[in-house]
Amino acid sequence: VTKPFSDRLAAAVRDKNSRLVVGLDPHLHLLPPELTDGISSDDREGLAGAAKRFCVEIVTAVQESTVAVKPQVAFFERLGPPGYQALEEVVEAAHGHGLLVISDGKRGDIGSTAQAYADYHLGDGGGPAALGADCATVNPYLGEDSLQPYESYLDRGRGIFLIAKTSNRGSGDLQDKIVGNGGATTAIYTEVARMAERIGARHELGVSGYGSAGIVVGATYPEQGRALREAFPSLIFLVPGIGAQGAAPEEIAGCFDGDGFGALINASRSVLFAYRDDNADGKSWRDAACDAAVVLRDEINAVLPPVA
Amino acid sequence: VTKPFSDRLAAAVRDKNSRLVVGLDPHLHLLPPELTDGISSDDREGLAGAAKRFCVEIVTAVQESTVAVKPQVAFFERLGPPGYQALEEVVEAAHGHGLLVISDGKRGDIGSTAQAYADYHLGDGGGPAALGADCATVNPYLGEDSLQPYESYLDRGRGIFLIAKTSNRGSGDLQDKIVGNGGATTAIYTEVARMAERIGARHELGVSGYGSAGIVVGATYPEQGRALREAFPSLIFLVPGIGAQGAAPEEIAGCFDGDGFGALINASRSVLFAYRDDNADGKSWRDAACDAAVVLRDEINAVLPPVA
Repeated sequence: VTKPFSDRLAAAVRDKNSRLVVGLDPHLHLLPPELTDGISSDDREGLAGAAKRFCVEIVTAVQESTVAVKPQVAFFERLGPPGYQALEEVVEAAHGHGLLVISDGKRGDIGSTAQAYADYHLGDGGGPAALGADCATVNPYLGEDSLQPYESYLDRGRGIFLIAKTSNRGSGDLQDKIVGNGGATTAIYTEVARMAERIGARHELGVSGYGSAGIVVGATYPEQGRALREAFPSLIFLVPGIGAQGAAPEEIAGCFDGDGFGALINASRSVLFAYRDDNADGKSWRDAACDAAVVLRDEINAVLPPVA
Repeated sequence: VTKPFSDRLAAAVRDKNSRLVVGLDPHLHLLPPELTDGISSDDREGLAGAAKRFCVEIVTAVQESTVAVKPQVAFFERLGPPGYQALEEVVEAAHGHGLLVISDGKRGDIGSTAQAYADYHLGDGGGPAALGADCATVNPYLGEDSLQPYESYLDRGRGIFLIAKTSNRGSGDLQDKIVGNGGATTAIYTEVARMAERIGARHELGVSGYGSAGIVVGATYPEQGRALREAFPSLIFLVPGIGAQGAAPEEIAGCFDGDGFGALINASRSVLFAYRDDNADGKSWRDAACDAAVVLRDEINAVLPPVA
């Protein structure tokens, strides 16, 4: 019997005393020159190889301070077939270090199409080889039935995060719209949180009371994060937006529960490309990433509510 | 100077007297046995090769009766690197027949991530090779700024379709929610239509008055399609849901304008796998698909409003 994803995650957070997720976004123009020197800008094989080497070494560098890595699928898809080859090897490397992997594809479709996405991102044997991540981000816009193909994976230790309130400026265009709900009114992103709550409740909850369907809540909207935390005690939050996107660590304090769990904080560029910072002091890109992850882990831990 | 996507599409509709799009959804278990015989269920290279051969021959079989093909990216992604290899070769084959290609990935993300998706699906040179479709479906849930990376492509003859009202039963969970809008109330899917209208209006409209940002409207919701048609004269509709998903051709009549333009009707399984129908009369799978596409093209043309 596999433990629920929420328990697997809670165990990793406890063991490492970390709530940090490092996003693997291999921006080609930001990669260390030593990895891309001599590779032509139209050489997909070469570029995918560089992206893979970069991500695999980053995974090694941050493995002690991070509970999970989050490959951003777009940067791999951008490189076509060799990009997916790189993606699969990066996931394998992360698993080799005992890290959880969140496949950040934000896929959303219906029926057999959604099933194909679920089977690739979370698939774990049976049929063609798959990416086999522990968890995937999904887009809820097509409705609760569109996420049904993911549900059987929740019984097999996998998780999903529904994008609810994203970190960008324009996230309010649809997500903040206020809708009636039996006399009360709620925002669309709250409707998404309810959807995640319903999905999680259909499967085994972890010992912590959390379900294996969580939500994405941008760190750039701390008030909404705090309100959602209070209203939805069974939802784990995946929180992007600190570092390069502008939010400070103290802004994510409200996303945690009284035990210092309940949220994972994602940083991508501020860790990956720390070697480019003015204060990188000539560190290697590996060391700069390692150090940036440690600092961020500690900054996050410093804002946790005191344990009750 | 490249013509706007809406004009390229209008020309193809006029030349072929067809509003049919054939969706390329290579369900592995529905492929003709002659293509998959002897291929192990875990042989991704072999399966991707079968999917590619199937799609390429379908494209050839339906090329005269269809204006565009719509590869469903999920089925290719399911097969990892060789799946993307197949996808790219299918797109190339379709372009070789002069067909427009709609990449159906429904991607949605922000900033540089959305840029990577746009560059792969619509990219046309510069940097690494890309899929280079003429048009892509996109998910609007992350807001109007999340679609900005696609906009430069609208000036280069490419198009996007924002998913507004999808064909599944659960599409109403979020899409039908009623929100206030300056005194009036509208559904979320109408807000998406407004978003598409704004995006299209920022770029050159076609001579027909249509923009190059359209919306996806499920054939299974004919009343909503008719209301959207009346309210948004500049939006081209991509309409899935006839055939295997249950809608009849007469239900999509309201999606067209008085000139028989303004909508593309997508059919996937009912064309692709017509050879499996009881009334296929022993036709080859190629002939069955060819005939099914011709019949569907004519059924669609038969429900068009009389030209004013």
